[in-house]
Amino acid sequence: MAAAKKQLFLGSFVHSKALDKLEFLHGAAVCVDQSGTIVAIERDCDEANAIEVLFPRLGWVKAEVVVVRAREGQFFFPGFIDTHIHAPQYPNVGIFGNSTLLDWLKTYTFPLEHSLSDPAKARQVYTRVIRKTLSHGTTCAAYFATIDVASTNLLADLCVAAGQRALVGRVCMDVQGSPDCDYYRDATAESALASTHASIAHMRTLDPTMSLVRPILTPRFAPACSLPLMRALGTLARETNLPIQTHLSENKAEIALVKSLFPPATTGATDDSYAAVYDAMGLLTPRTILAHAVHLTAAERALVVARGAKVSHCPCSNSALGSGLARVRWLLDAGVVCGLGTDVSGGYSASVLEAARQAALVSRLVGVTGGGKGGEREKLSVEKEKEREKEEEKEGERQKLSVDEVLFLATRGGAEVVGLEDKVGGFEVGMEWDAQLIGLGTVGEGGEVEGGEDDEGGNVDVFGWESWPERMAKWVYNGDDRNTKKVWVKGRLVHERK
Amino acid sequence: MAAAKKQLFLGSFVHSKALDKLEFLHGAAVCVDQSGTIVAIERDCDEANAIEVLFPRLGWVKAEVVVVRAREGQFFFPGFIDTHIHAPQYPNVGIFGNSTLLDWLKTYTFPLEHSLSDPAKARQVYTRVIRKTLSHGTTCAAYFATIDVASTNLLADLCVAAGQRALVGRVCMDVQGSPDCDYYRDATAESALASTHASIAHMRTLDPTMSLVRPILTPRFAPACSLPLMRALGTLARETNLPIQTHLSENKAEIALVKSLFPPATTGATDDSYAAVYDAMGLLTPRTILAHAVHLTAAERALVVARGAKVSHCPCSNSALGSGLARVRWLLDAGVVCGLGTDVSGGYSASVLEAARQAALVSRLVGVTGGGKGGEREKLSVEKEKEREKEEEKEGERQKLSVDEVLFLATRGGAEVVGLEDKVGGFEVGMEWDAQLIGLGTVGEGGEVEGGEDDEGGNVDVFGWESWPERMAKWVYNGDDRNTKKVWVKGRLVHERK
Repeated sequence: MAAAKKQLFLGSFVHSKALDKLEFLHGAAVCVDQSGTIVAIERDCDEANAIEVLFPRLGWVKAEVVVVRAREGQFFFPGFIDTHIHAPQYPNVGIFGNSTLLDWLKTYTFPLEHSLSDPAKARQVYTRVIRKTLSHGTTCAAYFATIDVASTNLLADLCVAAGQRALVGRVCMDVQGSPDCDYYRDATAESALASTHASIAHMRTLDPTMSLVRPILTPRFAPACSLPLMRALGTLARETNLPIQTHLSENKAEIALVKSLFPPATTGATDDSYAAVYDAMGLLTPRTILAHAVHLTAAERALVVARGAKVSHCPCSNSALGSGLARVRWLLDAGVVCGLGTDVSGGYSASVLEAARQAALVSRLVGVTGGGKGGEREKLSVEKEKEREKEEEKEGERQKLSVDEVLFLATRGGAEVVGLEDKVGGFEVGMEWDAQLIGLGTVGEGGEVEGGEDDEGGNVDVFGWESWPERMAKWVYNGDDRNTKKVWVKGRLVHERK
Repeated sequence: MAAAKKQLFLGSFVHSKALDKLEFLHGAAVCVDQSGTIVAIERDCDEANAIEVLFPRLGWVKAEVVVVRAREGQFFFPGFIDTHIHAPQYPNVGIFGNSTLLDWLKTYTFPLEHSLSDPAKARQVYTRVIRKTLSHGTTCAAYFATIDVASTNLLADLCVAAGQRALVGRVCMDVQGSPDCDYYRDATAESALASTHASIAHMRTLDPTMSLVRPILTPRFAPACSLPLMRALGTLARETNLPIQTHLSENKAEIALVKSLFPPATTGATDDSYAAVYDAMGLLTPRTILAHAVHLTAAERALVVARGAKVSHCPCSNSALGSGLARVRWLLDAGVVCGLGTDVSGGYSASVLEAARQAALVSRLVGVTGGGKGGEREKLSVEKEKEREKEEEKEGERQKLSVDEVLFLATRGGAEVVGLEDKVGGFEVGMEWDAQLIGLGTVGEGGEVEGGEDDEGGNVDVFGWESWPERMAKWVYNGDDRNTKKVWVKGRLVHERK
């Protein structure tokens, strides 16, 4: 699966150094060895310098090295990490009507997931979703599959074949709240566990060192799981150190449902919050990905931090299903590690760049709608009320996520969410080359786009005077898969636009 | 400028019949005469039928008719109407940092607009924005230009040359609140008026029958205009019946500024609201386009309805600048006519389809953030509070704009906003052929996209089982300019994808 060749990348490189700080390396060189690992990063280094200085240091011979150049204005960027995506739901992107979470599951989602036990359909859909996400620069995805073992295993096979890094989870759900959805669930907690084991075994054979694909325990969400199933998965996680993915606090009706289904007396939880249910089952771990977390209480946030669990922020989905505005700044403030998820097909787009754009946009609405503040509002005097308003306005401004920040969430943040922060998400010696080559459009003097086809830069029009940070902003707000020219995972070229 | 040929369009046609109702005409025929006017629409009519039945009725001879076919799965759709776009700001799309309205104007907008008094730059930017919006299916745009007469006139010239229907407004602004922006304003109210007249005269010579381009009076917004200037423009509107475009109630700081600048005693307004200032100046007319209207009071809404003024809803801009969530349902409920605006470059995208998508998305957040309700909340008993919560949830659901509704706003709604509802926005005999041909992608059994290039359908993947309403949803949520294959204005082909 590795690149099997030494590669020298030359040009501009952009990646996150910190949450609020992109680093720009221009005229730089990055050497990637046969295993796909970055072995050298050198500023102010052209090809001649690289050959003269880097190659001897690395023991490389010029003839065995493939050179890849970013053209003027292009740049290498770390591959995107989609921390929450339901692969089988891809055919439904954009289809959700005016539904909210619980009726959306019943109307649109379960029928489609169920239909993917047909191997031909599973192959078609999974092939498409992998190809589509790679074309959008997603080099790593945390996939929910379905309850079907064979097609879940096929998804893992197809990821390996296409060269996409992935966490693949067979979905565990032995409870269906509604009798008319009973066709789609695990028969018992035991059979759910057995199927989970079967899928884990398959992936361990497929990719023994988990170099590309690894299994992830996937209790769908509390209302779809019995306590014995959740408890058993918690135990399995502890015994195997496997990661976990599930949903948390997406929608108010869902939260009310969890409260009614799991009174603390039955779970042994310390309170009746949603997060406490997972905690009581041993499912809140440093390797747990919690999708959404829109309506967390301050106590739940503290619990998530204490357990070191991570959050997948899915703004496209939260707007589409009317779930609400997640307070990402409020989560980050407390030290919650956050990444971005497309949440296909609650989310309408398979693009992490679209998720980044929406993350920036909805963060601008958190403050203005009063979402930035926590807790209850007490009645104040007119003067004090004015002061509070001013304070709240400032606090509202602080909720905004910048271009640098959403790109951090899409790369470094996501890497930490999926537990791969030492391997991917940035350009560092010792990390692996999961990257995309980004090209923008250049508007000529006559108003045409230079370089032949008018479509070369998609909707990103650079007029020439823009600073690099401004180019990044243009990319985030108007970019699409047309700007992602090439994509590599572990040094291997896995997508190229014609 | 007309098509100068008779045309027969065959295939599927989709357009709005009512706010919440798209109509689908399959296997239909539409005849468009040399002037670009629709002269026949026939259901269940193939080419042979058209020749046999329609042509004799119209007195058409087969040899003079050009036939345009939508391929299987493609459909004709009315051209989009962008009811609010600042042409000179196009190079800044996506660039706004973490700013809000008033500092954004100062930092990003005025310097760029000012720089477009350079004719070469104006030609480059205006050529690009017309080409770009046409490629996104915008057949009609209400453009703000700059204060510069020559380049405003150039914008009108370029619209005529490119065949885009447009309302073009020279911006009137004789006040700059900030001394460091004083480089960019009209010297006096008189000079502003003289420049406006010069621009109107140019357009009347350019297109005497206003078949494509017409002038529009454009007081930037109240804080940038003196009372004499606003009053003179109100008088001019009354004398000439010319349309008006301006901004209203976009941002809370802006509203406070208007209150402080224009106390009712100075304007003769009935109260100190933003809308009342315009009304006192004679600027609220049935031909007035009010951009934003995010924070209107109930009284202002009633005033807008009473005057018959129209609203341009600009969701991309309102999210990007953190202005707030406009309550479109609340406006529609009262009978306010609404269309969509991209508001480039407060809005980050030149695409009306993107504005439609964001209109749907933010409408889903109006309810959940409490924006659906009007007025103050009184304290209630626990039981009454629960009832109210239920009521509010229902009311929140009702705020959602459906796919059909946002497409109505993008076409019929927009047509009414710009005063062209008898000419464009739908497919009716007697209306003009402003249309786009839309194509979606078809996923093959192996997961590839059929028909050669993988990029043919952009990001809209149709698997084959989708109903037509579901295809429309997929287009709204994932479509882009790649799906807009051809664009006509007044029967003339003005854009075609290679």
